[in-house]
Amino acid sequence: MKLGRLNHIGVATPSLESSIAYYRDVMGATITHQPFDLPAQGVKVCFVDTPGENGTAGTQIELIEPLGENSPIHGFIAKNPAGGQHHMCYEVPDIHVAKAWFEGLGKKVLGEPRIGAHGTLIFFVHPKDMNGVLTEIMETPKEGAH
Amino acid sequence: MKLGRLNHIGVATPSLESSIAYYRDVMGATITHQPFDLPAQGVKVCFVDTPGENGTAGTQIELIEPLGENSPIHGFIAKNPAGGQHHMCYEVPDIHVAKAWFEGLGKKVLGEPRIGAHGTLIFFVHPKDMNGVLTEIMETPKEGAH
Repeated sequence: MKLGRLNHIGVATPSLESSIAYYRDVMGATITHQPFDLPAQGVKVCFVDTPGENGTAGTQIELIEPLGENSPIHGFIAKNPAGGQHHMCYEVPDIHVAKAWFEGLGKKVLGEPRIGAHGTLIFFVHPKDMNGVLTEIMETPKEGAH
Repeated sequence: MKLGRLNHIGVATPSLESSIAYYRDVMGATITHQPFDLPAQGVKVCFVDTPGENGTAGTQIELIEPLGENSPIHGFIAKNPAGGQHHMCYEVPDIHVAKAWFEGLGKKVLGEPRIGAHGTLIFFVHPKDMNGVLTEIMETPKEGAH
């Protein structure tokens, strides 16, 4: 496998609203995306764009707030009440090829590929197998990643 | 202030050597940088490049291993023995203007600007003031960020 684009950094937060205000008012981001619910993943999501080189799109910040009682990020927020860096997401051209690659290396893929926040198939790989980082793998959107 | 480029994600590791092997052999990165010591920050560093859009340079992974007894990341590794996401670093055009900006907002800037891993001035801002994320601010290198 060849390393793909770092699509986004997942940042968990107890409050999407206050985090959006932080990225806008403190970090100077232009907020162009609307928050939305992603019930299948148990999170509310809002993407924040960062600039890449030469006018390209950079790696996004994916703000995630717990949604519902069974949200998988309740534990993270309990341990990190202010929120914090939660996962790193890389793009791949084919999600099934990528799943076979990681499984072939003995990595623990967490569930079957499912639709993620960008509308393409994603899966997560357990941090214990991934240099300590919860890693999301997503298929590159056909029309670009944002 | 206007949001700058996400230069790198700092990832702490107990072993630079095994992390470099992980990014090369599992994630498929092409390793083009050599590890080096940054005694002033108490870390050994190795950058891993990720691809940006349209052939541009993407956000880098900055692998950091504790260097010396007083390394500021010993505590992080003790809490996260496998390593993990440690900080996020954004570029700014002028480090002193940026410092005045964050201090004007009441943010806790950790020490005076000093030379960082890319050879330009940097400072860190305390995570409690930065949406839970330890945030590094670095002046953009004159010849580009890598």
